[in-house]
Amino acid sequence: MIPRYARPEFARIWEPQTRFTIMFEIEAHAADKMAELDVIPKEAARTIWEKGRGVIFNVDRIDEIEREVKHDVIAFLTHVTELVGPEARFLHQGMTSSDVNDTALAVQLARATDLLIEDVDLVLAALKRRAMEHRMTPCVGRSHGIHAEPTTFGLKLAGHYAEFQRTRQRLVAARAEIATCAISGAVGTFANVAPEVEAHVAGKMGLEVEPVSTQVIPRDRHAAYFAALAVAGSAIERLAVEIRHLQRTEVLEAEEPFDPGQKGSSAMPHKRNPILTENLTGLARLIRSAVTPALENVALWHERDISHSSVERAIAPDTTIHLDFALRRLAGVVERLVVYPDNMMRNLDRLGGLVHSQRVLLALTQKGMSREAAYSAVQTNAMKVWRGEGDFLGFLKADADIRPHLSDAELAELFDLGYHFKAVDTVFARVFSR
Amino acid sequence: MIPRYARPEFARIWEPQTRFTIMFEIEAHAADKMAELDVIPKEAARTIWEKGRGVIFNVDRIDEIEREVKHDVIAFLTHVTELVGPEARFLHQGMTSSDVNDTALAVQLARATDLLIEDVDLVLAALKRRAMEHRMTPCVGRSHGIHAEPTTFGLKLAGHYAEFQRTRQRLVAARAEIATCAISGAVGTFANVAPEVEAHVAGKMGLEVEPVSTQVIPRDRHAAYFAALAVAGSAIERLAVEIRHLQRTEVLEAEEPFDPGQKGSSAMPHKRNPILTENLTGLARLIRSAVTPALENVALWHERDISHSSVERAIAPDTTIHLDFALRRLAGVVERLVVYPDNMMRNLDRLGGLVHSQRVLLALTQKGMSREAAYSAVQTNAMKVWRGEGDFLGFLKADADIRPHLSDAELAELFDLGYHFKAVDTVFARVFSR
Amino acid sequence: MIPRYARPEFARIWEPQTRFTIMFEIEAHAADKMAELDVIPKEAARTIWEKGRGVIFNVDRIDEIEREVKHDVIAFLTHVTELVGPEARFLHQGMTSSDVNDTALAVQLARATDLLIEDVDLVLAALKRRAMEHRMTPCVGRSHGIHAEPTTFGLKLAGHYAEFQRTRQRLVAARAEIATCAISGAVGTFANVAPEVEAHVAGKMGLEVEPVSTQVIPRDRHAAYFAALAVAGSAIERLAVEIRHLQRTEVLEAEEPFDPGQKGSSAMPHKRNPILTENLTGLARLIRSAVTPALENVALWHERDISHSSVERAIAPDTTIHLDFALRRLAGVVERLVVYPDNMMRNLDRLGGLVHSQRVLLALTQKGMSREAAYSAVQTNAMKVWRGEGDFLGFLKADADIRPHLSDAELAELFDLGYHFKAVDTVFARVFSR
Amino acid sequence: MIPRYARPEFARIWEPQTRFTIMFEIEAHAADKMAELDVIPKEAARTIWEKGRGVIFNVDRIDEIEREVKHDVIAFLTHVTELVGPEARFLHQGMTSSDVNDTALAVQLARATDLLIEDVDLVLAALKRRAMEHRMTPCVGRSHGIHAEPTTFGLKLAGHYAEFQRTRQRLVAARAEIATCAISGAVGTFANVAPEVEAHVAGKMGLEVEPVSTQVIPRDRHAAYFAALAVAGSAIERLAVEIRHLQRTEVLEAEEPFDPGQKGSSAMPHKRNPILTENLTGLARLIRSAVTPALENVALWHERDISHSSVERAIAPDTTIHLDFALRRLAGVVERLVVYPDNMMRNLDRLGGLVHSQRVLLALTQKGMSREAAYSAVQTNAMKVWRGEGDFLGFLKADADIRPHLSDAELAELFDLGYHFKAVDTVFARVFSR
Repeated sequence: MIPRYARPEFARIWEPQTRFTIMFEIEAHAADKMAELDVIPKEAARTIWEKGRGVIFNVDRIDEIEREVKHDVIAFLTHVTELVGPEARFLHQGMTSSDVNDTALAVQLARATDLLIEDVDLVLAALKRRAMEHRMTPCVGRSHGIHAEPTTFGLKLAGHYAEFQRTRQRLVAARAEIATCAISGAVGTFANVAPEVEAHVAGKMGLEVEPVSTQVIPRDRHAAYFAALAVAGSAIERLAVEIRHLQRTEVLEAEEPFDPGQKGSSAMPHKRNPILTENLTGLARLIRSAVTPALENVALWHERDISHSSVERAIAPDTTIHLDFALRRLAGVVERLVVYPDNMMRNLDRLGGLVHSQRVLLALTQKGMSREAAYSAVQTNAMKVWRGEGDFLGFLKADADIRPHLSDAELAELFDLGYHFKAVDTVFARVFSR
Repeated sequence: MIPRYARPEFARIWEPQTRFTIMFEIEAHAADKMAELDVIPKEAARTIWEKGRGVIFNVDRIDEIEREVKHDVIAFLTHVTELVGPEARFLHQGMTSSDVNDTALAVQLARATDLLIEDVDLVLAALKRRAMEHRMTPCVGRSHGIHAEPTTFGLKLAGHYAEFQRTRQRLVAARAEIATCAISGAVGTFANVAPEVEAHVAGKMGLEVEPVSTQVIPRDRHAAYFAALAVAGSAIERLAVEIRHLQRTEVLEAEEPFDPGQKGSSAMPHKRNPILTENLTGLARLIRSAVTPALENVALWHERDISHSSVERAIAPDTTIHLDFALRRLAGVVERLVVYPDNMMRNLDRLGGLVHSQRVLLALTQKGMSREAAYSAVQTNAMKVWRGEGDFLGFLKADADIRPHLSDAELAELFDLGYHFKAVDTVFARVFSR
Repeated sequence: MIPRYARPEFARIWEPQTRFTIMFEIEAHAADKMAELDVIPKEAARTIWEKGRGVIFNVDRIDEIEREVKHDVIAFLTHVTELVGPEARFLHQGMTSSDVNDTALAVQLARATDLLIEDVDLVLAALKRRAMEHRMTPCVGRSHGIHAEPTTFGLKLAGHYAEFQRTRQRLVAARAEIATCAISGAVGTFANVAPEVEAHVAGKMGLEVEPVSTQVIPRDRHAAYFAALAVAGSAIERLAVEIRHLQRTEVLEAEEPFDPGQKGSSAMPHKRNPILTENLTGLARLIRSAVTPALENVALWHERDISHSSVERAIAPDTTIHLDFALRRLAGVVERLVVYPDNMMRNLDRLGGLVHSQRVLLALTQKGMSREAAYSAVQTNAMKVWRGEGDFLGFLKADADIRPHLSDAELAELFDLGYHFKAVDTVFARVFSR
Repeated sequence: MIPRYARPEFARIWEPQTRFTIMFEIEAHAADKMAELDVIPKEAARTIWEKGRGVIFNVDRIDEIEREVKHDVIAFLTHVTELVGPEARFLHQGMTSSDVNDTALAVQLARATDLLIEDVDLVLAALKRRAMEHRMTPCVGRSHGIHAEPTTFGLKLAGHYAEFQRTRQRLVAARAEIATCAISGAVGTFANVAPEVEAHVAGKMGLEVEPVSTQVIPRDRHAAYFAALAVAGSAIERLAVEIRHLQRTEVLEAEEPFDPGQKGSSAMPHKRNPILTENLTGLARLIRSAVTPALENVALWHERDISHSSVERAIAPDTTIHLDFALRRLAGVVERLVVYPDNMMRNLDRLGGLVHSQRVLLALTQKGMSREAAYSAVQTNAMKVWRGEGDFLGFLKADADIRPHLSDAELAELFDLGYHFKAVDTVFARVFSR
């Protein structure tokens, strides 16, 4: 995790203090149910809550104990005993470390995902506002980086909006993947802890019961989770790359916000660089890099080994923190993106009307020319324009093969921009009415 | 794609012939709607179907044309014209290559996924049958590769069953991700093709309408798709690794089927190796390797570039073909797995009763010993057993710290195996009643 | 492997026929040495060569045998016996399958790498020729996609040349990684085969002796090999992305060769798309995707398991074939790249002289202005130019803060293009004199 | 970076303080050469060193400035000016941010790699000592997890030693990849800074001159660097997995050191788990996960974009820190590994002599039996042993097909263990004499 890419409100989820509080709650809720089932004294469960609720755990002390016993959960429980007193010996009865560790991780990931979904909502809101604003702002559509046909800037943004709608759905599904509770004992048999304890804790912690666990919650869930985050990373990258392209000197159809005090380059005072979206491009790579180790974590040996633990210590906080930062940065960029409709129009006109070549082609075939002949006729004239020899409409009007089929007026009509935007409302209705 | 890992019925989906047939259907259905909308002559649409339906396309001829024009869809259309005649010029009106390419890919991926889901059902059926068969077959549960506590072989299989249930759900969701149709023209504006054409073709081809496309169906869909396949790969790997462990010489609790004519080793005639599950482990790596290029395919430039194309030419057929093969091989291995309950029991007894250490620990705390003292007492005796100095129950009975708390009879009762299996039915109900 | 991306001369390395020939040579050379050591009859070794040399092995027959015995090397040896007769029983004495499989793979990978190095030499030759041609062709250097300062097109190409020099060195090192021979028996102890046999075969097959093998050649070698190929993929991508950028409509400083018969778009006849370099971008992703499974192949169990085998069946041919294709395609693109020096100049002038802002900044500090004051003065004028309010040199001449420090003549001199190219020869000497 | 996996001496390389000191040195050395070239006053260069040498930079202050100017190098230079005074305006003349950033990163990576090589030397020393100690300790060699033939534990370790020798060579090569200095100005033309400055700084900082840079040191170098680290990760994993296998309850041929105070399980006091090597397995996944983003960092746009920066902020410290920790942990595990030769012998005998099956097979063919007949005879008896029906040697002696070829004495001789170890010295000489 890179500090500069960590929002404090978000990073807090991953602080040891937060984790220990969650672990305490899991243990204490479990104790409640065990007391109800007469496995431990009711008085013990009550005392545990009374003395432990709201306590600030001493992270340094727990670390100190762990260095001695080399076991994180034992260290935690030992510290709880220091705080709660002898009743703490009734905690963790019949449970195994993974019961509390995996369930705590589930709570942390679920909370993190709730915030990530809020972040996506910020991106969606910004995209929607700007899409509406530029619903009919003409710009050129490009395939292969080459001018193709006219589109609108709003339509571009609508496409990204739809992608973030899907991103949202994937995050909701990913949350369901990992929000489960397992308290099933050393190898998942509930030998020393009743299934009712698991159900009780699940309910209290806002989780589903894991239908069958080994010692651990199965890691295919986490692999699916990080895969969803990785796809979200790529969605961010696609929009970031679009903005970077639009800000290129030669294109300059849009620009990231540039603050008054900001310096673009230590050497070249004229520069205004798309550093936010370049940063997002890099963060997307980082976010995606969690997917392979998460996939490698699935095939734990038998009822579990602990190889996944060091991986998750890194990727769980880092990937969610980076994604949170990236989504919020992206929302800000979209919200404040400086758009240059005039430049969009200038670029659209740059090819001397070549963007209308397909309409001419279609009109010629409609008039009875074979597709091959029409394609050849249009291409011949297009190549002359491409070589800078003149204007497309002029060449077409002068072409002896074309004139028999299309009058000057008909040709001129084929160069109408509005023609291309007649379905924009239809698409907007599809996308934004959901 | 490796020929030996390609099931012919599955690989057929990815043959050029299949692809061209799908492309023809897309174009011909589009022509139907265009005719209905009076964009092209009704007679043309009819003729196209009459002459093109059921035709075996000449793949070599199309390749030949493509080498000349360097464009795959133009090559295909040119060949269709050779077969259908001049009416073919009305095909593809206002459409762009990606309209037909992407929609055809959607059909292929959807069909492939249907078969993959059937494959998962085979795995599920095999797992369920064997889980029921071994519901109460005792074996040792292992964490860290070290004996932990008793479980049943059926419970192990139930865990994998639940994982493949999730795998199935992910494949169903993945299918929905990619089963969309886009026929929206050069930059997604429907400038020269009506949205009704897209809706018509979508319906006919069994796809949903893509709400907003650029020139292409957005590739976050495909990234999510291949991510789901990757997670399925890891699920296969987990079960394969379990079986490989169980077949180790020192464990030998289960074995892959070994055919009479089969030779395990060219040099060592005594060998029976778990080569099928080792092969599955490798295939899982291959299947997962598609996820990174699929993620890198998302950020196409502007309305599209074609960098995703070569990637998908490889990963779409290869990954689905390998997954199909792997799932079916896995189903076969599970179905015919040779299970050795006697060896499971022998292994379970190997630690001289140490697997019951936790019950003793819990019983001591129930009797009033502090957790720390109980842990220490149990561990001291356990370590003696570990060093081969004798039998756990004997040591416990002789321990002066333990005797005041637990009688010989109470201690013996703590070594009862059935105690561990009392929740098996509960878990089975959770897993198999879904 | 995608057929269209397979050069026949290269793909031949990976044909079963080639593989069986190499396997025969390994076995026959081993037999020679065994005969010399009196382990097998000299007559047998002679007969094996006489009857087996130059034989076309019947791949279908071998496959048929393999389906029965489920063991590839046994199938091969059985077929050799059919061809060579009873003397074949002396083949493979004391050897294990991996001895022949791994050594054969080493030969194939070494041959493939020899061709890949030739391919890189083609890229290097093309880059050098074009770099020399455009050594002093001015164009704008861009950071963040924004115009920075002048450079030359030759200097750009020199940078890529140096990267492919490094690529070449990495391939040479990668070849050394995998070009080893292991014939050490079932677990690498040489129990039944003398180390002299290994040394003899290594010499004959052009390989080094593997210092210590288990049953297999250790797979860290192959992981390092595929990692080198992956880095080569990224080098290709960097140059491909550069060309794609240069071909964008708004930039158009260079274009891929476009053949007369070629069609850029089925719908838009005016299009000339950088499809070759987009294809290379995709191929780079494919080539890189081998690195993760290759890394996962390293940790085989004990003296070996066979999980690496299915992975290598795919990635060894596919990745080398795709890289060969990509390097040759890249060499062709560079060789025939259409360069537009006029457009480069036009783009260079596009910012109204802003590319000289740093020189002005430096000159001001040289004249005694503080860096901060100079930066501010230059930036203020630059921003006016950026907003399209006029020409940079004009603004500078009129600036009351700047005039005291720099005369009109001095300012004009700071806008000299040649100033930027004075070190080009130095850099070219560094790069091309190696 | 996970704090618990960060060795303070190593992590220090990556602290901001270290980085700012390196940046200062680069700038100050550059100033020396500029002064010598009369680009800046000699007095200025002297003052800069006098006031800046050994200064503790105020990281918080630099962060504060960066938040305002949004540019890291400008923030640093501004702070240097606060410390050094007005002479600081002569720093950074004609240089660009990447000149100092990339060169500083090179210094940090080179220092990190020096320590990593020392770490590998620790692993090598431990492996060598234990290999020598167990040179002739017999144990079974396993392929596919199944007993194959006898080997020695020392031979196993020798194989890992050779792998870490290669790891060392790769790290040395990787260090050379990244240890370069670029001070070439805004787009690599040396327009405003002489190549002599670069050469001077390179020499002072212990780096090579980058032959041709754009604005940045090309990132194929870093991709190759992280690829080498990834392969090192897999080498660690292979040895870690071997130890995990050897510690399994059923195998128990070796155990990780287990400290007196340590607790294996919160629930099961008898457990001694291979948690160190499981941790190493996970760290290997983390270390490897840097390779894909590093490969994606190569294709920066034109003379550079800054997308690589956030990636490197994470992977440069994290990956080297984790690898340092993992190598040292591994060295400790090997050094203190508890080896059980008795258990190795017991396991070796477990298959009733089947590990000698190949020798019998070879002896029969030597005596004139066809390979097929011999294989069949040996396999028939082996399968009886496998089914637990008796002892291999006994069956062979009683076999009517075998008796004509091999006497009882000859058969007994074929079961001699020493036979398998005759080449151990040869292999050790190959490996350890390097």
